[in-house]
Amino acid sequence: MIAVDVMGGDYAPQEAVQGALAAAQKGISVVLFGNQDKVMPLLSHYYPRWRSLPIELVHCSDVIEMDEEPVRGMLRKKDASIVRALQALRLGKVQAFVSAGNSGAVMAAATVILGRVPGVLRPAIGTFLPTNHGSLFCLDLGANPDCKPEYMVQFAYMGYAYMRLVKHIAQPRIALLSNGHESYKGSVLVKKAYDLLSKTSLEFVGNIESRDLFAGRADVIVTDGFTGNVLLKSIQGTARAVMDWIKDEAARSLFLKILLGLTYPLLSRIKNKIDYARTGGALLLGVNKPVIIAHGSSKEQAITQAIFFAHKTVQEKIVPTFNETLKGLLEKGTTALKTIQQPATTSTSGQVQL
Amino acid sequence: MIAVDVMGGDYAPQEAVQGALAAAQKGISVVLFGNQDKVMPLLSHYYPRWRSLPIELVHCSDVIEMDEEPVRGMLRKKDASIVRALQALRLGKVQAFVSAGNSGAVMAAATVILGRVPGVLRPAIGTFLPTNHGSLFCLDLGANPDCKPEYMVQFAYMGYAYMRLVKHIAQPRIALLSNGHESYKGSVLVKKAYDLLSKTSLEFVGNIESRDLFAGRADVIVTDGFTGNVLLKSIQGTARAVMDWIKDEAARSLFLKILLGLTYPLLSRIKNKIDYARTGGALLLGVNKPVIIAHGSSKEQAITQAIFFAHKTVQEKIVPTFNETLKGLLEKGTTALKTIQQPATTSTSGQVQL
Repeated sequence: MIAVDVMGGDYAPQEAVQGALAAAQKGISVVLFGNQDKVMPLLSHYYPRWRSLPIELVHCSDVIEMDEEPVRGMLRKKDASIVRALQALRLGKVQAFVSAGNSGAVMAAATVILGRVPGVLRPAIGTFLPTNHGSLFCLDLGANPDCKPEYMVQFAYMGYAYMRLVKHIAQPRIALLSNGHESYKGSVLVKKAYDLLSKTSLEFVGNIESRDLFAGRADVIVTDGFTGNVLLKSIQGTARAVMDWIKDEAARSLFLKILLGLTYPLLSRIKNKIDYARTGGALLLGVNKPVIIAHGSSKEQAITQAIFFAHKTVQEKIVPTFNETLKGLLEKGTTALKTIQQPATTSTSGQVQL
Repeated sequence: MIAVDVMGGDYAPQEAVQGALAAAQKGISVVLFGNQDKVMPLLSHYYPRWRSLPIELVHCSDVIEMDEEPVRGMLRKKDASIVRALQALRLGKVQAFVSAGNSGAVMAAATVILGRVPGVLRPAIGTFLPTNHGSLFCLDLGANPDCKPEYMVQFAYMGYAYMRLVKHIAQPRIALLSNGHESYKGSVLVKKAYDLLSKTSLEFVGNIESRDLFAGRADVIVTDGFTGNVLLKSIQGTARAVMDWIKDEAARSLFLKILLGLTYPLLSRIKNKIDYARTGGALLLGVNKPVIIAHGSSKEQAITQAIFFAHKTVQEKIVPTFNETLKGLLEKGTTALKTIQQPATTSTSGQVQL
């Protein structure tokens, strides 16, 4: 059973309810968390026979608004859909949670209610970026606007474990997003993360520029949550802008307009590729249960896709397996770092003392 | 006369020499700074009658390499093309400097050799982003990977002055790049910059997400140099990727391939729009003379465009006018901030003492 926050997101509750209905019609059991006075009429409106579907409704009187300061909202509103759904997840009443609501609040509440995987300093939001050359997993995409270098090393381990598990890449190549590919480039934070990553046993391929993301040089892109969020949204914004420019240019001539009309299936495939509506949300990595963060501007289809993604994640036991691997990696990783920081001392005879 | 660093950039000296030749053929006087043993044969090769063009050559024995740590390179190599060209600019022997070389070195050397505009804490790199709705000026794009909130307020004043001067916008709207449009969103740096910007007399429209850059909500985007660089390069990379995806999708069917071939003029106009080869470099704002930083991967055409841009900037006296305005704004801005930080004290009678 997948918990769905039907009060969260720019188009809630309408689109969230519709998205959940669509998933339920495909046979996925959903538990909707939201205000029943608002949700019930919508269910009846969109699908009068909704009671025949695998849908449950848990009434919550509060909502953490999109523009509300997350932690404050979470602490004040004990009966908010986000809080209640996460409690149900902790108790095992549901197996995953999907929300397009205030992502800061989801992250904060998930950390407090579900708890972090042992060794994890900060959970991170990770997702795949659209490319033509294999898969590219990027994190953090917004959970941590301010990072320490140590967090970023952990994000690298998360990306490594996730790519191995989901894409079966034996040795995922880890790159650090920077303002130049040269090793001396970067903010102070990135330079420190570079140094730490160089000392791990990960396949660290160095700095990568955002221009080269699509060239297939790396499997995992590590960045802080602020930059990652700007990156993700600029990819979305630019892709849409290019499509709009094409339309605008075509509008200049009837001939081009007709031609472009004929290429509609092509353009529509591209649109699907870049449209986050179809990617179905990002996983919150590093917490003890599956939490899927959908985009705040998710519409029906995006919510449905996020529920499908949550369902698949549960079916394939992705999160428990990932968490077990991550825990092991972080234990080993920390040991490895410690070994480097405390080098073996050399005895007077020139022999290395172990 | 425009100084051109023909040793700088990924494709130097070949492409830089060709770019300078093309500009000289259009009647712009150029002074090439570089190793004469390399540059002379290239000049003769590409344009045997080059001595009939308004071209001078200043021999420099050193080069600051692209992957060299900028400040170290600058201090060690007194006879580097960047250093020599900037000295010529300071002495008024040339009127502007164009380089596709190590941008960190150009920035550092320009700051030291030319000096900053009074009141400027850090020079910044600014350029226009491609949009369909008016002009969008973005800074910093890489001069300062680590910023303080005060620098970002100054970037806002720079953007304000530049948009007024170049685009004649009376009251440019300033937005702060963040990971959400809500006022509480952002890294610690962005939140502090938000507070400071709110207290200026600038038309500050708040946070903007990178997804909404193309929607025309702002005229100036302020960000730190690290994020700005990632943003710029991700716009470039994504736009190219989308064009590639279109080609790849079209390749699946002969019909689509033919159709797409017919839309070639359209696609080529889009390509020009996103291609930084044609934008011709970015201005280094806040130093005493015109310095144009071209992209490291500039080819002939990009260098020529950067020289045209430098020439136009000199002809229209952009930099002296801009610097004078900026100086005044920073003086007033600082006073305004001081006034806010030291509020008028209230007398016992309840009247405000001024």
